[in-house]
Amino acid sequence: MRYFLHLAYDGTQYHGWQIQPNTVTVQQELDRRLSQVLRQPVYCLGSGRTDSGVHASHQVAHFDAEVPESLDLPTLLYRLNRALPQDIRALAVHPVPAAAHARFDATARTYQYHVRLVPDPFAPAHTLYLDRAPDVEAMNEAAAFLVGEHDFTSFSKVKGSEKHYRCHCYEAGWHRVPGGLVFQIRANRFVRGMVRLVVGTLLDVGRGKLTPAQYGDVLRSLQRVHASGAAAAQGLFLCRVEYPAELVANVTLPVGLPYFAST
Amino acid sequence: MRYFLHLAYDGTQYHGWQIQPNTVTVQQELDRRLSQVLRQPVYCLGSGRTDSGVHASHQVAHFDAEVPESLDLPTLLYRLNRALPQDIRALAVHPVPAAAHARFDATARTYQYHVRLVPDPFAPAHTLYLDRAPDVEAMNEAAAFLVGEHDFTSFSKVKGSEKHYRCHCYEAGWHRVPGGLVFQIRANRFVRGMVRLVVGTLLDVGRGKLTPAQYGDVLRSLQRVHASGAAAAQGLFLCRVEYPAELVANVTLPVGLPYFAST
Repeated sequence: MRYFLHLAYDGTQYHGWQIQPNTVTVQQELDRRLSQVLRQPVYCLGSGRTDSGVHASHQVAHFDAEVPESLDLPTLLYRLNRALPQDIRALAVHPVPAAAHARFDATARTYQYHVRLVPDPFAPAHTLYLDRAPDVEAMNEAAAFLVGEHDFTSFSKVKGSEKHYRCHCYEAGWHRVPGGLVFQIRANRFVRGMVRLVVGTLLDVGRGKLTPAQYGDVLRSLQRVHASGAAAAQGLFLCRVEYPAELVANVTLPVGLPYFAST
Repeated sequence: MRYFLHLAYDGTQYHGWQIQPNTVTVQQELDRRLSQVLRQPVYCLGSGRTDSGVHASHQVAHFDAEVPESLDLPTLLYRLNRALPQDIRALAVHPVPAAAHARFDATARTYQYHVRLVPDPFAPAHTLYLDRAPDVEAMNEAAAFLVGEHDFTSFSKVKGSEKHYRCHCYEAGWHRVPGGLVFQIRANRFVRGMVRLVVGTLLDVGRGKLTPAQYGDVLRSLQRVHASGAAAAQGLFLCRVEYPAELVANVTLPVGLPYFAST
């Protein structure tokens, strides 16, 4: 039987999502604990990778396993959370059709980037602290160029395994929150390193180093060298992965983790 | 010249506020860094102690120092924050009359206790996680007994240095926030361990182990044995210290750190 597992994690201590030799990754920790709890080898496949140090307030993975009839799913979830380290939490688990795929069936992903503008001793690992408030209006004028279908080569990390760099961006903008700012971006797909490059370059608009029009030029140039440096991983959250309604019909995600409903 | 220093700190790594031999405390770290930045021995006196592991989103201390004319106060604040570890942040510094006293002149203190009701990988060190939602209405019915002037012997940690156990409590109640609950209590003074015992016993009301009326009986009994265990330090924040307006006339505290304005 195939299952979807919904999770949240603090990425600070992990070398990203994807299993790699000689490092600790979220997927590796998850496979190990899930295999322990289910007493069979289990492998998770995620909706997408997150980079080293990047967080998720909502990530989805699928796995195949024989769950014994004696073990109901709320109990599985409870035991998995007891087995997992505190910085990875399982939010929900439910059966899906055998052909359902956490990566290929995802219709949209949403990321947030969190910026603090006041000295805050509580969240240094979950925000980027800025000494000076950036120009939010200019950043939002620039962010408007991202909406629609574009080739995001300028904001991609490496020419590598991607077949193409076209992404359809449904939403991109900065929101004021108490003590800081949150950038939220929603798209059908993201290429590697995209959000951190998009944000790093927007912050240069916020500092007056680039005009909003020049930001549009960077996007249209299709050349990575025109983008600014990537914003630090610590402020970035994967915060929603969407699927066709029939796959996640009865899933209720907890409120209170980072996420704004799209408007 | 005497100064008031407003701060916030994550108490996780500290054995409380007060200097003690052979441990690391907030006051000790602060004295050391302030002495470094001002190039003279400086000693801070806080509005009150916080226990080991307890946080502060607003704490106030006074110190006496000769600040050279060439060093303006925003620059002092900036340098102090560069010198301090990330988990202690200076929020504001300003001169006060020579007789002003961070402890004796404080007119009210406000504490918050943070409870999470959803699995959350991001704030394990800043909240108490509860598997089951407690009965908020019952807890608030019980908390209403706290408001007014009472002898809080039942909710004090040890018979020790306190001259008396009377505190005037102006406000005490639970608030629903996304993903959890926050208890906020404001009083002229607090005796040692009071908030954690008040909250620990309220949570027993929330679990149905005590009725609200029995909570009132615990308070009136003036006997510590009737209170429940103390709630874990990790959820507790000192979040506002109030002074007569003339002492803090021009101080603006950052928004976004834990605090509800009292209604």
